[in-house]
Amino acid sequence: MSRPLRPISLEEIESLAVGAWILGTGGGGSPYLALLNMRRLYREGRTVSLLDPMDLDDDELVAVVSNMGAPLVGQERLTDPQHIARAVTLMQEHLGRRFGAVMALEIGGGNAIQPLMAAALLDLPVVDADTMGRAYPEAQMTSFAVHDLRMYPLTLVDVRDNAVIVAQAASWKWMERLSRRACVEVGSIASTCKAPRTGKEVKACAILRTTTKAIRLGEAVRAARRAHHDPVQAVIDAEGGLLLFTGKVRDVERRATEGFLRGTATVDGLAAFRGHAFRVAFQNEFAVGWLDGAPRVMTPDLICVLDSVSGEAIGTETLRYGQRVSVVALPGPAVFRTPRGLEHVGPRAFGYDLDFTSVFP
Amino acid sequence: MSRPLRPISLEEIESLAVGAWILGTGGGGSPYLALLNMRRLYREGRTVSLLDPMDLDDDELVAVVSNMGAPLVGQERLTDPQHIARAVTLMQEHLGRRFGAVMALEIGGGNAIQPLMAAALLDLPVVDADTMGRAYPEAQMTSFAVHDLRMYPLTLVDVRDNAVIVAQAASWKWMERLSRRACVEVGSIASTCKAPRTGKEVKACAILRTTTKAIRLGEAVRAARRAHHDPVQAVIDAEGGLLLFTGKVRDVERRATEGFLRGTATVDGLAAFRGHAFRVAFQNEFAVGWLDGAPRVMTPDLICVLDSVSGEAIGTETLRYGQRVSVVALPGPAVFRTPRGLEHVGPRAFGYDLDFTSVFP
Repeated sequence: MSRPLRPISLEEIESLAVGAWILGTGGGGSPYLALLNMRRLYREGRTVSLLDPMDLDDDELVAVVSNMGAPLVGQERLTDPQHIARAVTLMQEHLGRRFGAVMALEIGGGNAIQPLMAAALLDLPVVDADTMGRAYPEAQMTSFAVHDLRMYPLTLVDVRDNAVIVAQAASWKWMERLSRRACVEVGSIASTCKAPRTGKEVKACAILRTTTKAIRLGEAVRAARRAHHDPVQAVIDAEGGLLLFTGKVRDVERRATEGFLRGTATVDGLAAFRGHAFRVAFQNEFAVGWLDGAPRVMTPDLICVLDSVSGEAIGTETLRYGQRVSVVALPGPAVFRTPRGLEHVGPRAFGYDLDFTSVFP
Repeated sequence: MSRPLRPISLEEIESLAVGAWILGTGGGGSPYLALLNMRRLYREGRTVSLLDPMDLDDDELVAVVSNMGAPLVGQERLTDPQHIARAVTLMQEHLGRRFGAVMALEIGGGNAIQPLMAAALLDLPVVDADTMGRAYPEAQMTSFAVHDLRMYPLTLVDVRDNAVIVAQAASWKWMERLSRRACVEVGSIASTCKAPRTGKEVKACAILRTTTKAIRLGEAVRAARRAHHDPVQAVIDAEGGLLLFTGKVRDVERRATEGFLRGTATVDGLAAFRGHAFRVAFQNEFAVGWLDGAPRVMTPDLICVLDSVSGEAIGTETLRYGQRVSVVALPGPAVFRTPRGLEHVGPRAFGYDLDFTSVFP
């Protein structure tokens, strides 16, 4: 296929790691280990190219990849690009067809870089898109699920040569249950290739150009750091965000359970927020935030907890006592603010009996 | 392929159900629902043929099938032949190859009849063999595992259109873990097609002619009933068995857990055994029996609990207070009495710190 491919520079990948970690809203896994892998792959002479989704052929197949599991475990079991590549080749073997490109399931955290690792090893381009515009914890929390596309097959591989294919699932929830069980059994972290998509499906149902968006966001933060400007303000300016709270982490309650990292964190206010407290609850990603006990922000708005000095995102697995943090809301993709979208990712989808209210007008 | 196929009569399937239930040593699931299905399939004009394993071509593929899970659940979720057939066709799709025949993973209980249901729907012969010569609860408790054959892929389907393939497993224990997890998640019962075997592997590593053996055993019991002879004695005579105990069930402790049915039963002695007590422990199948607190019989010897009057086998899911039972030991396949076989199915494989001693000289 001859089509416009844009090589991604390592500098852009450095920015992608920063921007994707912010869009991860606490989840998607720290991009650090994936970034180290990309530095090595580029040092070895490999490069990855970005493909605009509109340049996909209607009938070519796209591999949608992500690491799955509890981010805390991803910190301990080091990332090897071979695993995500193996999930893709296993899917090819199962289908008896080849992929034309790879794309991210979620542009949040390390999962923004997983497709680059697979692409570098398999010599495929990366589609500039994802299915969340952020990170979310469950299989049915994607734009593809909201559009009711087919949810199977899925391939899942671990570090020990175990490989599971969910060949068919009765629903998105069943796909989540079956793949999550396998993930938990192999140690709560696994590399997955989700249901293959045609170029046509990606163009119609993905969230477009989010790789570029994450790179630009990371560039803005890095530029602010270099210029000694406020990186948190740079995030707000770049994405039309809103500062919700600034303070110091007082308490973190966290547990790796059922293949997720769940918990809450409480932040005591500083500066303009002195005397107030902000509590945020997470299931891999931050789901709901309360200001002095009243709901203040909730999914699908993006809830980002940033280091107040560096603007670096803080993951749900790296939150700890004493951190100076700023809580920032960013607007989420339009597809999730529809009634159908809210069924998949609104506060009730996470078990909170709240009607969705956006902090954005 | 032109080769000698012997049609199985419905009368033989009736005997198979009786014989296989005895060889099931409490597990493999009650054959009753599978038998009802076979009666209907035969009424509809279908028949199944038996193929001697030695008539398999070396390179043809054999589908090894079984229902997997907790027998108690199999009592409640009715058997539909479509499911076991679907496990087989899914394997064909995954492999891109067709099977030449179907065989039983275990000749114990309803799993002796599962291949007949698949064969009837798919128009394939049934190989006269299995991999246990009885029933066992776990994936690595087969003659194929003792011979160290490849353990993957495995297909697993449920009643709701869920389908999982364990495409690769790092070991037999991993295959057991991954498939068991999927089985538990879909409700602790699922239809499976195990790793495909070549004709050559079946001839070298299966336990041969156990379908015929189970039919003959069932015929002996049914003949004894018709002649008003002792059916329990008929079992002992047919298989070279040993009567270990006769009595009345005093207590059953049973739980469906982790995809298995586990528990113990205690029998108070009658007749020559009056004043003594026999306790038997099970994980789907009876594993170890104690006479007055001392180990009396253990796997791989077959421990069969039979109704003292009818000689009908009693499953671990149908054992109940007040039943008059006879505990009979039958000799197990030679492959499991080797040191390697005992690693897979000896008492320690079930968590009992006992050296295997056979009740047979």
